[in-house]
Amino acid sequence: MKKTIGILGGMGPLATADLYRKIIEQTDADCDNDHIRVYIDGNSAIPDRTAAILHGGEDPVPEMLSALRHLEACGADCIIMPCNTAHFFLPRLQAQTDLPILDMQKITARVCRERFPGKTPAILATDGTIQSGLFDRALEEEGISWMHPDKSEQKTLMHLIYDVVKASKPMEPVKESWEQILDALRARGADLFILGCTELPVLSGALHSTGPFIDPTEELAREAIRFCGYQLKSPSC
Amino acid sequence: MKKTIGILGGMGPLATADLYRKIIEQTDADCDNDHIRVYIDGNSAIPDRTAAILHGGEDPVPEMLSALRHLEACGADCIIMPCNTAHFFLPRLQAQTDLPILDMQKITARVCRERFPGKTPAILATDGTIQSGLFDRALEEEGISWMHPDKSEQKTLMHLIYDVVKASKPMEPVKESWEQILDALRARGADLFILGCTELPVLSGALHSTGPFIDPTEELAREAIRFCGYQLKSPSC
Repeated sequence: MKKTIGILGGMGPLATADLYRKIIEQTDADCDNDHIRVYIDGNSAIPDRTAAILHGGEDPVPEMLSALRHLEACGADCIIMPCNTAHFFLPRLQAQTDLPILDMQKITARVCRERFPGKTPAILATDGTIQSGLFDRALEEEGISWMHPDKSEQKTLMHLIYDVVKASKPMEPVKESWEQILDALRARGADLFILGCTELPVLSGALHSTGPFIDPTEELAREAIRFCGYQLKSPSC
Repeated sequence: MKKTIGILGGMGPLATADLYRKIIEQTDADCDNDHIRVYIDGNSAIPDRTAAILHGGEDPVPEMLSALRHLEACGADCIIMPCNTAHFFLPRLQAQTDLPILDMQKITARVCRERFPGKTPAILATDGTIQSGLFDRALEEEGISWMHPDKSEQKTLMHLIYDVVKASKPMEPVKESWEQILDALRARGADLFILGCTELPVLSGALHSTGPFIDPTEELAREAIRFCGYQLKSPSC
């Protein structure tokens, strides 16, 4: 019996659709029936994760648990979350379920070590993810040193994530701001970029930016496919 | 209390992700929390619909019902299916649930009359959809005459749907075959094209083809958004 995936989604909605699409595209399948059964709760009522971590905003866990219960009821065998910042709450969620919740930051750090040994990644993420140190700790465990954007770059990044991608605004007009952040980090020594907010692969894909990038959403998709006992379509590139 | 959408999906998986994305893109929203809560069962175990209708293949209704029950359990307020051919089974499904199942062909026919009055659409769809007359009847009810592809064009179309899009193969190599079908139908009097299989908007989008097209997936997304009491982002174009 092959396994199924539950996506605890809605954080944000486009990132959820993007993760689902990546699972489909990365699965070695020749027809509908070769694909993995995927359950999604795109729960748009989950309060903002960064606001909760940094500014005492509403606790997102109750709405995350509501989605988790739906996915359990459907019969999901594992849970994945298309939101890096949401992983701050993973331990609290994991304590409430027997289903394994795959950890996007740990998966990303392992891929970083395997694919770019000795290289320095810059972590591009929300304020909530950056300040909670989620990627920092995962990379540290793999013996990798990292860089963060400076304050002004981080502010621009938050604008791109919240006011452009999450707001479903056209992305082409912000191409220059995005590329400037990448160039500045390269100049300060970044060898590659971790697209550590699930809206950023959406942005970099739409803008056809050159990396090298690690897309945690894609690595999470690949890990979930392996977990379910399906074959990956192609090696990572 | 705003309403939620249940997507009875997996038919095919890419079309399901495409429908979810269209709902997000067409909703007038400025942040995650402005979006509609969407439940998806991407049930890849649903047997092929065309095979069941035309060749005595396995009945897809039991697996469709399995997904429907999951969506009911999650609390969906309406059901949509990102598969035109699956609508052959809509009456049997509707008899088993109190939730309204929005009818993609009826919605498309209404849009066709409103947006292209007096024009002749060509129906591009699977053998199962074509032979079951799903679009024919819906268009007839709106007083619209239509065209079908000829036998050889239909065979090519089935190849594009099954061996390319559903098989997640690269689409660029089949651009010429696809455009030839459109040109031939235009030459015989088609004014516009109904992308009547949910894999076809995926194909025409990837190949940047010029229509005019009606995308039933997009119209279904827009109808579902209206049903849920949310605002559409922009007028149809």
